[in-house]
Amino acid sequence: MFKKSFIYLITLLMSGIISLNTGCESKDGYNSDLIISNALIVTMDADFRVIENGAIVIAGDSIVAIGNSDELLGMFKAPKIIDGKGRLVMPGLINTHTHSPMTIFRGFADDLPLHEWLYDHIFPVEAEFITKENVSLGAKLAIVEMLQSGTTTFNDMYYFGDEIAHVVEKAGIRAVITEGLIDFAVPNSESPEHGINYTERMIKKWAGHSLVTIGVAAHAPYSSSGELIVASKALADRYNVPFNIHVAETKKEFDQIMSKHGLTPVQYLNKLGVLSSNMIMAHGIHLTEEDIKIVAEKGVGIAHNPECNMKLASGVAPVPDILAAGGKVGLGTDGVASNNNLDMFDEMNTAALLHKLHKNDPTVLDARTVVEMATIGGARVLGMDDKIGSIEKGKKADIIIIDLGKPHLHPLFNVYSLVVYSMKSSDVESVIVNGQIVMQNRNVLNIDEKALYSQVDSLVAEILKYVENR
Amino acid sequence: MFKKSFIYLITLLMSGIISLNTGCESKDGYNSDLIISNALIVTMDADFRVIENGAIVIAGDSIVAIGNSDELLGMFKAPKIIDGKGRLVMPGLINTHTHSPMTIFRGFADDLPLHEWLYDHIFPVEAEFITKENVSLGAKLAIVEMLQSGTTTFNDMYYFGDEIAHVVEKAGIRAVITEGLIDFAVPNSESPEHGINYTERMIKKWAGHSLVTIGVAAHAPYSSSGELIVASKALADRYNVPFNIHVAETKKEFDQIMSKHGLTPVQYLNKLGVLSSNMIMAHGIHLTEEDIKIVAEKGVGIAHNPECNMKLASGVAPVPDILAAGGKVGLGTDGVASNNNLDMFDEMNTAALLHKLHKNDPTVLDARTVVEMATIGGARVLGMDDKIGSIEKGKKADIIIIDLGKPHLHPLFNVYSLVVYSMKSSDVESVIVNGQIVMQNRNVLNIDEKALYSQVDSLVAEILKYVENR
Repeated sequence: MFKKSFIYLITLLMSGIISLNTGCESKDGYNSDLIISNALIVTMDADFRVIENGAIVIAGDSIVAIGNSDELLGMFKAPKIIDGKGRLVMPGLINTHTHSPMTIFRGFADDLPLHEWLYDHIFPVEAEFITKENVSLGAKLAIVEMLQSGTTTFNDMYYFGDEIAHVVEKAGIRAVITEGLIDFAVPNSESPEHGINYTERMIKKWAGHSLVTIGVAAHAPYSSSGELIVASKALADRYNVPFNIHVAETKKEFDQIMSKHGLTPVQYLNKLGVLSSNMIMAHGIHLTEEDIKIVAEKGVGIAHNPECNMKLASGVAPVPDILAAGGKVGLGTDGVASNNNLDMFDEMNTAALLHKLHKNDPTVLDARTVVEMATIGGARVLGMDDKIGSIEKGKKADIIIIDLGKPHLHPLFNVYSLVVYSMKSSDVESVIVNGQIVMQNRNVLNIDEKALYSQVDSLVAEILKYVENR
Repeated sequence: MFKKSFIYLITLLMSGIISLNTGCESKDGYNSDLIISNALIVTMDADFRVIENGAIVIAGDSIVAIGNSDELLGMFKAPKIIDGKGRLVMPGLINTHTHSPMTIFRGFADDLPLHEWLYDHIFPVEAEFITKENVSLGAKLAIVEMLQSGTTTFNDMYYFGDEIAHVVEKAGIRAVITEGLIDFAVPNSESPEHGINYTERMIKKWAGHSLVTIGVAAHAPYSSSGELIVASKALADRYNVPFNIHVAETKKEFDQIMSKHGLTPVQYLNKLGVLSSNMIMAHGIHLTEEDIKIVAEKGVGIAHNPECNMKLASGVAPVPDILAAGGKVGLGTDGVASNNNLDMFDEMNTAALLHKLHKNDPTVLDARTVVEMATIGGARVLGMDDKIGSIEKGKKADIIIIDLGKPHLHPLFNVYSLVVYSMKSSDVESVIVNGQIVMQNRNVLNIDEKALYSQVDSLVAEILKYVENR
């Protein structure tokens, strides 16, 4: 046994599957912090390896080995071993576009025309209720929901980002946080300049944090001036951080930009010189063939939000075409006020179905491509694919463990089909972010759920009172 | 307190909200079998009543009272009281179209063109593996999945219906079961005549059963001859039972029937004289304006299966137009081989989003309309709305209890929005069918889940061996 393990160890070392620079050797094997054993592992690595009876060895925040369970258990020891028997283990999901604190407005206004929804309902309650405290509360609620549905990284655009960053740190989830810069006064900024300064202070404050990445955001070409877009993009480039912007979400926006600038939204942004690989373009629905080419060539990432786009009747982003052109596409939920949930499993399912219907072709966006968009594809969109998005040696340990003991997860013929067409977010049993267990047996460990719900209920009472007296 | 209760009782009796003919009076109050107290009740009755702090009193298989929890608890006693605090209680969901035993082929073949999927993958494994035993196994798996996702009634079309009926009886779910009659030999029938005889024997055998209703099914206008459709409809009419048929699912079918008969599928069936209110038309995608008028006028029910229709790129059924014309529409999942789940919460969500996108109008199919399709609307489609589909005095007690203590169910501004856009099937905590608790705290009581999964795993091994050696 020892000899066999030794030969296997040498093989792994030579092939680079494991490294020994993180653990210390003892007589019982190399030390690590956490091992997930006996699991069905969907790695989402470049070879799309699926490992039966696999193990993942974690030391500190990183994956140090992945391979056959029996062999790795013979080589490594850890104070905690999670038995993955009957479990599917995969990379944590990456939500490439949301406005997390908007959870507090879930279901506040639905089934309405976009303009009425936004101007008569959402903007007024935002003006009244978006305070530091409520942003913190909304972000907490969002993060509990995200962890319970298998999301380990989210890309946020909202206000009071510093508050959100503190909640992210406390909960132990990973996030890109950006402050929406817009031409008019918003809850946290009396002016765009104020917002830019606030963002720069945040970037400096959180630099080097293990979980929080501060980025920059301009709201959209129709709501942020060209000057503001250029200035905010320059800030993102100066600090080499991600840059968020909503683009071509509605036909109305497309027509408006065309009529004002004589260019499509994408071509207008191209003329401004802001298209590059640290840009995350939310939606990207109304794109011309030329736009798709530009987006792919410039390495711009697209955050595709199929459920929100359907619910608001915005249209269908040309995802298969963007992928075919070599573009980067990730999945997102958008904010809860227009979804109304943060469930990336739902989003995977909807993406897979929507494009088949839209292209009139059931072979479009096969299940594996969709899982890719929700994991390593999303990591590429955020510029973090060197760090997260797949289960590989050297990557951060952002991992979800899924209980297969459910009726809808039987039989298992194809893991990707199972994940996209049958699995539910509630099947996620445990979540690991940056090597730390943050949800175990569906209990989110770092946030008190009951206290949270009671705070949300109090806020709802306030909102309803305000609406009544308006 | 007594006086107040007495006055309330008189009021309820006079208003017909409760009846006293089911319980016996004792000094402690009227006897009943089960009370759900302190709940938020979504009745789906004609007035769409939503009752806060409500109670439902059940005696035998029926609801005998519904109203304010404190008042009813003062009047009725029961050996079992379920505390509904923090719970939403609503009618069990009604799946108007599925092929339950196909669960055993979940994920067997996906992301393929329809013809290749059906002829190269599904038909061959069906021919090999659809036996009495496997139908029973597949139905069991389906029913566990359905109960765990809040479905209390399903409308089935498959083979070996008698086996399915036995599983339905054992599990305690409610079902309409029909044997697919088709022009060629199928697993349970060497000929259509054999299938008709088998169906008639089943109808007689299960007549008057509390949970099982045997209906009749012709497969589709392209696969069942005019004679077969007419004969099978005559059988359904003779026994006054539901009649299932797939209609206008694909453009190919529409074109084929047009070219063969010079009529649309609906108009062809109308010419055959088979359109009437006991017909449940699955899909109904490719309908002309005239077809919609006919379907509505004849009282034909439409079983709308949005997820399957998207996955197979079949098209979008004109549901808002059918409803506007006064037609009856319910929701269905279709079989698992083309969905790949039996989750009616998913189906509600997808229906609501799909038609908004398709009509380019976010006000289309509001949340309440969608909940209606999944409950009382589905009951109308099955011709069972006198018995199920809403929580009302005198109706059968088919009820689901949903735990609201989840992040994605906060805040609660609108119950219908919450159900359609945020709720997940996994939020269903307990299920009551025909007055009996059949799932409690997510445990399906009458089927051994673990034994079931082990049987399914063995079958998968057999199927994979067969595929390998083919």
